[in-house]
Amino acid sequence: MTDFPPSDRNRVRRLPARAHYDADTIYPILDEALICHVGFVADGQPFVIPTIQARLGDTIILHGAKASRLLKHAAAGEPLCITCTIVDGLVLARSVFHHSMNYRSAVVFGRGRLAESAEEKWAALEAITEHVMPGRWADARLPNELEMNATSVVLVEIDEATAKVRSGPPGDDDEDYALPIWAGVLPSHLQFGAPLDDPKLGAGIEVPGYVGAFWRK
Amino acid sequence: MTDFPPSDRNRVRRLPARAHYDADTIYPILDEALICHVGFVADGQPFVIPTIQARLGDTIILHGAKASRLLKHAAAGEPLCITCTIVDGLVLARSVFHHSMNYRSAVVFGRGRLAESAEEKWAALEAITEHVMPGRWADARLPNELEMNATSVVLVEIDEATAKVRSGPPGDDDEDYALPIWAGVLPSHLQFGAPLDDPKLGAGIEVPGYVGAFWRK
Repeated sequence: MTDFPPSDRNRVRRLPARAHYDADTIYPILDEALICHVGFVADGQPFVIPTIQARLGDTIILHGAKASRLLKHAAAGEPLCITCTIVDGLVLARSVFHHSMNYRSAVVFGRGRLAESAEEKWAALEAITEHVMPGRWADARLPNELEMNATSVVLVEIDEATAKVRSGPPGDDDEDYALPIWAGVLPSHLQFGAPLDDPKLGAGIEVPGYVGAFWRK
Repeated sequence: MTDFPPSDRNRVRRLPARAHYDADTIYPILDEALICHVGFVADGQPFVIPTIQARLGDTIILHGAKASRLLKHAAAGEPLCITCTIVDGLVLARSVFHHSMNYRSAVVFGRGRLAESAEEKWAALEAITEHVMPGRWADARLPNELEMNATSVVLVEIDEATAKVRSGPPGDDDEDYALPIWAGVLPSHLQFGAPLDDPKLGAGIEVPGYVGAFWRK
């Protein structure tokens, strides 16, 4: 499938066998990655800023304080690049040259606009909260009017996108397989530890089930 | 300490209490992060590409195939932004508004140049290899002339830099502490699993100690 046909902008040049242009590959990467890195240009200078994203359909949601430089630039309608990367392991080949990583990355191109209606903004903040921790929105104290006014939400419609994926064992040159060097993959993932209570937590308040389910997985 | 005095480019606007301009804070983030996200501009369009970095003194090293778009742009001497981000946990406040993450991010500004001498290139590739896995360079089959010629190394002298760091428990509004909502931090880190032998691994070749030490930590 090719939901985002390769253009001069999103076409992968290096190792095109690793490239994917379909939403079925790209969207799960955007959904699994906890954070993204947003690129924008100001006076010819690129900026790359980490932030939390969420996806609603074909739109990526960013949020932040009204005063944030990132949000101001993202809202301005100038070209953006939003990249999510998940590292799945270190690939240790026999030769230094063939060392690599297993990874899934998604690169999205689009332009941002400020969320207009209160409903649009509310749905976006719910999506952001649920992206980070499913179940939290129904439990936490929801935003009040003051907080809503202090927050900017930017919607970036996905204009073009690419995923690049590597998986599996190392690939060495034929003559190197005979070398007495260990080769393989060291898998990696983002691991969550046991929840730490806020020191100011009231007595008798237990860790909710959705948090426990999250860190035990 | 202020090794990189705040300028219009690297000054943190939002939550300036989280900002750091000293190498003692910034460099360990660059060293710990497995990968970085490199931002460059082509025809006004920002690109954000994940890649492996290493630091040698005040220089960040990037490498890749000669044909890589990232490397070509990085080598061209145009302004770059290189960002490393480590997520240390999810910060779950009582109010949605005060939800956050614990993180350490470093944003570096500079311009790249191609490594000139074979010695410079060799040292850079050793630094990259050892950044990912200390001990590997002394064990793996080192690059030959063909491989050296196929690889580009770009050196980016750190011109300006900033770190932004959040740690510790959530901060809620005074009146929210009485709410019967669990609050706290869910710590996170990059976890390595047991090494997977290459299916083509020769008989009797054991996982080296430096790999074991790495994944068990």
